[in-house]
Amino acid sequence: MPDDRYFLSLSCRNRPGIVAAVARCLFEAGGNIQEAHQHDDIETGMFFARIGFNFVNGDDLETLRTRFADVAASFDMNWTMRSVSQPLRVLVLVSRFDHCLSDILYRWRIGELNMSIAGIVANYPRETYPHHDFNGTPFDYLPVTRENKAEQEEKLWSIIEERQVDLVILARYMQVLSPELARRLEGRCINIHHSFLPGFKGAKPYHQAHERGVKLIGATAHYVTSDLDEGPIIEQDVERVTHHDTPETLVRKGRDIERRVLARALAWHLDGRVLLNGRKTVVFKD
Amino acid sequence: MPDDRYFLSLSCRNRPGIVAAVARCLFEAGGNIQEAHQHDDIETGMFFARIGFNFVNGDDLETLRTRFADVAASFDMNWTMRSVSQPLRVLVLVSRFDHCLSDILYRWRIGELNMSIAGIVANYPRETYPHHDFNGTPFDYLPVTRENKAEQEEKLWSIIEERQVDLVILARYMQVLSPELARRLEGRCINIHHSFLPGFKGAKPYHQAHERGVKLIGATAHYVTSDLDEGPIIEQDVERVTHHDTPETLVRKGRDIERRVLARALAWHLDGRVLLNGRKTVVFKD
Amino acid sequence: MPDDRYFLSLSCRNRPGIVAAVARCLFEAGGNIQEAHQHDDIETGMFFARIGFNFVNGDDLETLRTRFADVAASFDMNWTMRSVSQPLRVLVLVSRFDHCLSDILYRWRIGELNMSIAGIVANYPRETYPHHDFNGTPFDYLPVTRENKAEQEEKLWSIIEERQVDLVILARYMQVLSPELARRLEGRCINIHHSFLPGFKGAKPYHQAHERGVKLIGATAHYVTSDLDEGPIIEQDVERVTHHDTPETLVRKGRDIERRVLARALAWHLDGRVLLNGRKTVVFKD
Amino acid sequence: MPDDRYFLSLSCRNRPGIVAAVARCLFEAGGNIQEAHQHDDIETGMFFARIGFNFVNGDDLETLRTRFADVAASFDMNWTMRSVSQPLRVLVLVSRFDHCLSDILYRWRIGELNMSIAGIVANYPRETYPHHDFNGTPFDYLPVTRENKAEQEEKLWSIIEERQVDLVILARYMQVLSPELARRLEGRCINIHHSFLPGFKGAKPYHQAHERGVKLIGATAHYVTSDLDEGPIIEQDVERVTHHDTPETLVRKGRDIERRVLARALAWHLDGRVLLNGRKTVVFKD
Repeated sequence: MPDDRYFLSLSCRNRPGIVAAVARCLFEAGGNIQEAHQHDDIETGMFFARIGFNFVNGDDLETLRTRFADVAASFDMNWTMRSVSQPLRVLVLVSRFDHCLSDILYRWRIGELNMSIAGIVANYPRETYPHHDFNGTPFDYLPVTRENKAEQEEKLWSIIEERQVDLVILARYMQVLSPELARRLEGRCINIHHSFLPGFKGAKPYHQAHERGVKLIGATAHYVTSDLDEGPIIEQDVERVTHHDTPETLVRKGRDIERRVLARALAWHLDGRVLLNGRKTVVFKD
Repeated sequence: MPDDRYFLSLSCRNRPGIVAAVARCLFEAGGNIQEAHQHDDIETGMFFARIGFNFVNGDDLETLRTRFADVAASFDMNWTMRSVSQPLRVLVLVSRFDHCLSDILYRWRIGELNMSIAGIVANYPRETYPHHDFNGTPFDYLPVTRENKAEQEEKLWSIIEERQVDLVILARYMQVLSPELARRLEGRCINIHHSFLPGFKGAKPYHQAHERGVKLIGATAHYVTSDLDEGPIIEQDVERVTHHDTPETLVRKGRDIERRVLARALAWHLDGRVLLNGRKTVVFKD
Repeated sequence: MPDDRYFLSLSCRNRPGIVAAVARCLFEAGGNIQEAHQHDDIETGMFFARIGFNFVNGDDLETLRTRFADVAASFDMNWTMRSVSQPLRVLVLVSRFDHCLSDILYRWRIGELNMSIAGIVANYPRETYPHHDFNGTPFDYLPVTRENKAEQEEKLWSIIEERQVDLVILARYMQVLSPELARRLEGRCINIHHSFLPGFKGAKPYHQAHERGVKLIGATAHYVTSDLDEGPIIEQDVERVTHHDTPETLVRKGRDIERRVLARALAWHLDGRVLLNGRKTVVFKD
Repeated sequence: MPDDRYFLSLSCRNRPGIVAAVARCLFEAGGNIQEAHQHDDIETGMFFARIGFNFVNGDDLETLRTRFADVAASFDMNWTMRSVSQPLRVLVLVSRFDHCLSDILYRWRIGELNMSIAGIVANYPRETYPHHDFNGTPFDYLPVTRENKAEQEEKLWSIIEERQVDLVILARYMQVLSPELARRLEGRCINIHHSFLPGFKGAKPYHQAHERGVKLIGATAHYVTSDLDEGPIIEQDVERVTHHDTPETLVRKGRDIERRVLARALAWHLDGRVLLNGRKTVVFKD
């Protein structure tokens, strides 16, 4: 179809003239800007932008890309330019609790998530999820123990490489990745942590929250780094709880928060709306 | 001080090249874009933008304004360009309930609101507000009856004209403006309605909400039009209520919603962040 | 298991001594109150309560029920007493959009919803939902046209009667029930309407919301009455939207609100936490 | 007026028959229960309740109190019974930032807060708050340095004793109380901390939040204990922030959260709705 949509995401050191140069390049290549977001980080002096565009007179992404490469070089940009209809390849890692997996699969099926599923990897066997229709998506059972962890991570890495995985989702995957794997997946591995970080890092956050007597519980989607629960935060949300809540009801209420926080972070990443800014993120929401 | 901040707000029919032309003009005049928002309304074909900028080598707003006038003319733009430090002149209208007035005065005093107060007009006498320090701000008592309404509106209009009022705030002013006055103040008169519009228009919305048994109550800040409670919405918010609530407790809980909704709408308007789009608004939040 | 949990929900005209009489009856029958909520409606003079309890020395629900019947009679109560582990029989009605159905099925499977599914009735054929595992739950395809509506409602009523259905869920079922059927199902049929009622009743509420330019959209779960979208509200929630949103993105964002609002209303109804109070509800949340 | 409202708040070890005994005592003394909340803490085995009541045939609080003392003794209760119209005496401590003070004074003036103000104590001089009308409320300037802290706390304690202060509010009072004073004020000193605890304890929480890149900021009202920022939480709330926010805009947005969180906690404490449960609170909201 002639009116395909594209986007350009970029970051570079800030200096006058960036927007003028980018806008002129797009205009001269027949691009029409449909949506634009930018952010100037005063502290770090970095500039971030995402521009959604289409072509007025017939698409010619390759010509634009060639021309834009010169602009990008002159500002020393990190940049990505792609069609919205070219989905990322996503690998979903899951443990026993499948509410986030179930939610992602449903949203993917009805077309909410601009991705293809490269596979599902679980540390529980396939029969743990009897009601899920994986539609032929490869399922790999990789149980992890203290002894075989390095070995299983190698298998996982092979899957990521062979299937050209763009993004890994830890959809309540109850294993901590090794620092090496975390580093290899920098900026392309999203975890959902079941607390409002930085509160209640580590294990059993709902039990910690109950113990502390907080009046709201939350969930946090963040990029995985080698520093546990310290990666750049993409999205967070909370819900009100009361003195009546037990750790068990917090777990139940938390499931709803976790799945919507992860779904938003995932959708934004897939649309090139999340840019890394050191230990933080810039999120250009839809 | 050399690093004054400015903004440009504009709207026009959308066509390729707007951003390139605007960005180039700013760049060539020594402007540095610090913040930028834009919106393309697909239905109406209109384009909206707000650009925050400063000058790299000494401020020269008038030169930029002259140059930009040509760009604006070529795209047939509606536009405003001014210094953030040049405050709008605001007239506050109030009735017996003074929670919004009190809140606005406080925020203004501590520097949250980029405005000067041109006056306070009330249909209750000065002694209704014994605890307020109006700091020498003119206070006009204009009681309104069915008989004197036209006359009092004329006095109000004189105040608006004489004091060069940029914006009128109906801070729980319990009078309906005449269609004529509403039309004269189009786009520069903000009302706070104590319901989540379009639910519960007209009188006693908290009583209506109680009657209907809603589980959330809200407030709506909107530009006043001659069509009661139908003007373009700037901001809304809600709070949870329960079956325990009476109309009286809804009124109490509602006060908090009203004042924060009005304060946000006011702050955004003062910063040129609200653009009219027919019966709707485009709000470029901070 | 010996520590089964029970609840008693009741309403009656308010007068002194109700709590004392109920608490004494429970105490004398060996009941231990674990959770209690009550509400006095000052306007109507009605009293509402829900008491969660277990038995200290062995369960004996029938003895308690017999004794309590006398107390109930003396106060002319409407009341229900049952074991939490005795699930209600629920019939789910659905149209083409299956996000609420999918959500309900998932929650039911993992044990969040204290119900059994008596069947699924759709006005679309079974192949519309290829990825759903209905686990042997009866599926009835009852397409509705103007001509066959009365007839199909008869079939629906037969299903409700034969399967002893306690509760009917309109899980985005895009048909309006006839006034007769609505009346027959009074207090046991929950609908999810995709707007924040009373705003945007009727068809295409997200399009109406977009047209009006509201800054928050919502969903409302309510009991169905013969008066369309006017039934007693059980739960509502909202989410923030912006000028960027189109009717299509409102539909997408709305799905999340709809499913969580319906799920909460359903769970509370199943636990006897929702009591009718004329055109309103009393909701004793967990 | 004959229909004065009263409440009874109590806690004790849970055992069957508490509600029956309390309800019977109230009933026999001519009390009519208007509102009732209770909570059973399964972990600690404690029972908590708050009962709002009036008298059917003329008020006789002293007779009821005498009778109830027997019931309370038999269950070894901690309990309070008083008229809603008998306000607590509150001392407000403040530093340079006066947004919480200003908010409390406004709410108190319009009758939202059931208290009398025993005084305002500041570590800044009176002229710091030129626009505030303290209405003759005693104002004490107690500047605190490392050297005079013990001495000033003694003065503070004298004020508390002499004026029979029931509750101390740290309304953004930027001093840490000594462990001794914190202990003396256990359960009757409320602090507002400008973060969503347990995240960002200690100094400059908005700067910490900015540094970490969280997507929501919050505030926490809690009882002061000798353990800094670790006291029992009464109320929390949050607001969404973005990558555009600087520490300065977080401070501005945070003011709104702080004042509403503190106002709710204060109102609930004044109405006997907050009960201590070890390191946590039970809050029976209105």
